[in-house]
Amino acid sequence: MHAIGVDIGGTKIAAGVVDEDGTILAKTRRDTSPDDVAGIDKAIAEVYLELSGSYEIGAVGVAAAGFVSADRSSVLFAPNIAWRDYPLRQKVQAILGDEDVLIVVENDANAAGWAEFQFGAARDVDDMLMLTVGTGLGGAIVSNGKLVRGAWGVAAEIGHMRVVPGGHYCGCGHEGCWEQYASGSALVRDAQATVIIHPERATRLLELAGGNADKLSGPQVTQAAQEGDPLAVELLTELGRWVGEGAASATALLDPALIVIGGGVADAGELLLAPARKAFAEQLSGRGHRPEAAIVVASMGNDAGLVGAADLARG
Amino acid sequence: MHAIGVDIGGTKIAAGVVDEDGTILAKTRRDTSPDDVAGIDKAIAEVYLELSGSYEIGAVGVAAAGFVSADRSSVLFAPNIAWRDYPLRQKVQAILGDEDVLIVVENDANAAGWAEFQFGAARDVDDMLMLTVGTGLGGAIVSNGKLVRGAWGVAAEIGHMRVVPGGHYCGCGHEGCWEQYASGSALVRDAQATVIIHPERATRLLELAGGNADKLSGPQVTQAAQEGDPLAVELLTELGRWVGEGAASATALLDPALIVIGGGVADAGELLLAPARKAFAEQLSGRGHRPEAAIVVASMGNDAGLVGAADLARG
Amino acid sequence: MHAIGVDIGGTKIAAGVVDEDGTILAKTRRDTSPDDVAGIDKAIAEVYLELSGSYEIGAVGVAAAGFVSADRSSVLFAPNIAWRDYPLRQKVQAILGDEDVLIVVENDANAAGWAEFQFGAARDVDDMLMLTVGTGLGGAIVSNGKLVRGAWGVAAEIGHMRVVPGGHYCGCGHEGCWEQYASGSALVRDAQATVIIHPERATRLLELAGGNADKLSGPQVTQAAQEGDPLAVELLTELGRWVGEGAASATALLDPALIVIGGGVADAGELLLAPARKAFAEQLSGRGHRPEAAIVVASMGNDAGLVGAADLARG
Amino acid sequence: MHAIGVDIGGTKIAAGVVDEDGTILAKTRRDTSPDDVAGIDKAIAEVYLELSGSYEIGAVGVAAAGFVSADRSSVLFAPNIAWRDYPLRQKVQAILGDEDVLIVVENDANAAGWAEFQFGAARDVDDMLMLTVGTGLGGAIVSNGKLVRGAWGVAAEIGHMRVVPGGHYCGCGHEGCWEQYASGSALVRDAQATVIIHPERATRLLELAGGNADKLSGPQVTQAAQEGDPLAVELLTELGRWVGEGAASATALLDPALIVIGGGVADAGELLLAPARKAFAEQLSGRGHRPEAAIVVASMGNDAGLVGAADLARG
Repeated sequence: MHAIGVDIGGTKIAAGVVDEDGTILAKTRRDTSPDDVAGIDKAIAEVYLELSGSYEIGAVGVAAAGFVSADRSSVLFAPNIAWRDYPLRQKVQAILGDEDVLIVVENDANAAGWAEFQFGAARDVDDMLMLTVGTGLGGAIVSNGKLVRGAWGVAAEIGHMRVVPGGHYCGCGHEGCWEQYASGSALVRDAQATVIIHPERATRLLELAGGNADKLSGPQVTQAAQEGDPLAVELLTELGRWVGEGAASATALLDPALIVIGGGVADAGELLLAPARKAFAEQLSGRGHRPEAAIVVASMGNDAGLVGAADLARG
Repeated sequence: MHAIGVDIGGTKIAAGVVDEDGTILAKTRRDTSPDDVAGIDKAIAEVYLELSGSYEIGAVGVAAAGFVSADRSSVLFAPNIAWRDYPLRQKVQAILGDEDVLIVVENDANAAGWAEFQFGAARDVDDMLMLTVGTGLGGAIVSNGKLVRGAWGVAAEIGHMRVVPGGHYCGCGHEGCWEQYASGSALVRDAQATVIIHPERATRLLELAGGNADKLSGPQVTQAAQEGDPLAVELLTELGRWVGEGAASATALLDPALIVIGGGVADAGELLLAPARKAFAEQLSGRGHRPEAAIVVASMGNDAGLVGAADLARG
Repeated sequence: MHAIGVDIGGTKIAAGVVDEDGTILAKTRRDTSPDDVAGIDKAIAEVYLELSGSYEIGAVGVAAAGFVSADRSSVLFAPNIAWRDYPLRQKVQAILGDEDVLIVVENDANAAGWAEFQFGAARDVDDMLMLTVGTGLGGAIVSNGKLVRGAWGVAAEIGHMRVVPGGHYCGCGHEGCWEQYASGSALVRDAQATVIIHPERATRLLELAGGNADKLSGPQVTQAAQEGDPLAVELLTELGRWVGEGAASATALLDPALIVIGGGVADAGELLLAPARKAFAEQLSGRGHRPEAAIVVASMGNDAGLVGAADLARG
Repeated sequence: MHAIGVDIGGTKIAAGVVDEDGTILAKTRRDTSPDDVAGIDKAIAEVYLELSGSYEIGAVGVAAAGFVSADRSSVLFAPNIAWRDYPLRQKVQAILGDEDVLIVVENDANAAGWAEFQFGAARDVDDMLMLTVGTGLGGAIVSNGKLVRGAWGVAAEIGHMRVVPGGHYCGCGHEGCWEQYASGSALVRDAQATVIIHPERATRLLELAGGNADKLSGPQVTQAAQEGDPLAVELLTELGRWVGEGAASATALLDPALIVIGGGVADAGELLLAPARKAFAEQLSGRGHRPEAAIVVASMGNDAGLVGAADLARG
């Protein structure tokens, strides 16, 4: 059965027809605005009509950054789009005038993690932890072949596990959340702090940022590290350490066979993963008396959310 | 179908026939030694023979403190009993001369958690986190009605989630493990530290300990708190705070409907749970945009391990 | 001997003639710009000429927020004024055309602390720690009757003692500096975080901030606390706890007889000091075997910097 | 003027005649018991009589591990000797039957620090921080040429500055004291923890400890590091990191020109100092806008306490 996956970003939606092997048969997209939720409904309806013209479609999966209701029909809350207890399924069905279109909403990190689990880096295991190291730190948990959604659909908000009491402020209002230590934002902030303390070491980073530390980006730090800049390598090493140490805590709870690292920062590859593996091995409880999860890079790329949402909708 | 549950302690094993409602129909026990693993095998065989004389038994569940293999036949490692990669199922079957007796080994905290899930405090939910606050801090996780065992059977070692980088030393060799802040051992150590700093506040605790802080026990702290001793109340409040804050981190990953608190320290009741709930609410990420797990006391008592092991063995 | 004290603020300078009892006999002021350091030189020269017309002046003390050279003639670095290795004494003397005018530059927190020590809250002790809890956290140390300036004049940068490894980012480029936990800025940030987590508790704070959490100020939190608002009281309690715990660490090094709390946040009085004293007593090492420093509010008000600078210049 | 210095250890006292250049002209010793405080008085009297037979003596300085009264006549409290508010000066004078013998008691770490300041590694500076990294972490502070004793004589208890909230338990009853991270005891405990987590890396350490991790000592770790054992090097690096980071916090308060590292662990030399310097530079606030303290090894050896006590007694 074919399914449509829709990945909702801040300023556009991407959609595609996905077959049972996770292959995308056709793609389309629409521009949207994060404040115009009705416009997003309409865009979803449009891509459905466009893609279902050429393919027989059994279900529509929508990947959205936010808390999704347990019945996967609504978005409870989204940080970047104006959804608040928003009945997304019902709204789109109303536009289509068809209550039989099966629409399933899923958290975008869950959807991407599911794609890795079904078709990507984790396709050979039953228990997986996915960490999406991007602007923030998202995640997905698969236990015994099932996505862990939790009682109310908001499991795997893994970036908000606290790793430092009294630590960095987080946008969620708390202190010391893991994503404040293991994300692209953390990488940039740490780089900027180093510019203050050790300007003599930050020459290359400043150059890449056009001389203005406020303009420094995560990909620039990665680029400098790949060129061999010692400070940038150190910054990624530190980030990797936090990834690995947090993963060891999560592993104490979940015992996954595989930890998959995705998100933009994962482009740093071994510069991130090697220190993550080292820290994971050093922090893992019971090491020596248990097998150890491997830590690998995600393989599905930017389409993971779309593909995973489609597959989850198929059920 | 009836099953036998066997709970292996340090110096004795307790066994019972358990029906499908979690009721114990008959009980027996044997003394054992933690260093004599063959003696434990033999004792298990004996209680099986004794109990299966009067009841038709479909399976035997063995609850053991340690890492259990993914196929639930062996103990990989136990902190307090001399098992190392020990094929417990096979050993007992060999004594019985019967390879058809279905023997299932399970981690004791998992077994106890399962009993709460099936028959106890969590029988009405699908997603549960159990915290066993005893000498250490154990746990069990149920997600969507299934026990989370992990890839290698060692999930829910929740006491080894790190809550303070550079924090208290743990017997596992790491620093800052949750169980060093949220366990009976932590309670006693914190009480003893207070005797050094504020002897004037520790009068009642010292009295209960016979004048010797080294002899102070967790139940004595609880007793003093129940009598209203301000220091003891404060110590349990602090312990409860760590329970609640750690539970908030675990909830970011798992989104349980219910958090069940068991173990000896749970006897303190609201003196522990009220501060745990307060801290949980203060630390829970996304609060206000999601329902909140309730925190309740376990209801199955000391038989939870036995009952849960039997029920899990039944499959 | 009379001396002039000059207190250099961001947008104005205040100056006064100070007698040997710390009394201000005459005052004047000038508007200045933080980017126009020559203008500041000129303003200092002007107030000197104005005030020395009516009084015989033996010395001029200049209080400046920044690192001051060991010989107290130059500002090495200032966070908010464009001084970089700036020979302030020489510049002002050049304008006056008189190298004999005795001009002594002093860090403003040191100057204010010295005023408390000579004429204010600490006039009866020989060993004092002053904490200025304002936008940041400054300080001054007096040991055996002498101001502790350090080898290079930059002692008592007490706000940059680290209290949380991996803690809040600080403007200095490091993490976990004390001033990120014990300052008016910390108070406001913590209040704003609570608005996110517990909006239902922040009603009064939001009202005072005109409905916009971004506009919330430290004095508004203090006002709410003085009215009895529970959240505001809690926020000041938490701030006080950090003041007291950090003071206990500083006391392990310095063993002061008195800890004087100044700065704008000290206006909260006992709402801040009571929890500070409690935390100090709980964290003080060796308690019971040593006398304990008292913690009191500063008594010299906004003129402390001016008075202290004058007195220090007198030598 | 010659003075006698007496260094009181747990099981013996060492005494010597010290001239004004810090040279020891004669030495003697007595065995003592930590529980027999009268015996210690008597031994001090004896060594005084013995040494003053051949030299004209102006004063006697006694270095003792403990809190010393502000007038330097009594020991308020000692962790390892049975002194509690003990009038040591008066007791020894009574035995000698001579109230004119000038006896000055000083904390042993202060005495050793003073010797380094007057005659040793810090003889060319005015502002010094001494860190004695032995079983615990002691210290001494010299500011502007004067020993900082504090209001009640108990300053420079630097090992009890808190560096990790909720950190390692300390014998003082608190958590997270610096000496639990930067001392020989910390080194041994960390080494023992590594034996649990990474036995494969601890081969050499275990060998040196005779196969029993419980017998491992600090000097054995240093020996292994000097041989190049990677784990031992790493352990000293970590210890050095804590020394440097804590020193940066102390420097924010004190701005010393020199940081002198003494105590048994300092025998590790650059294996300890190089990482200490690196961490100090990384954590020092205001770096780049201020000169930086050098970090060097103490030069006075085991006689530092004796020499410093004699010199301080001379006044």
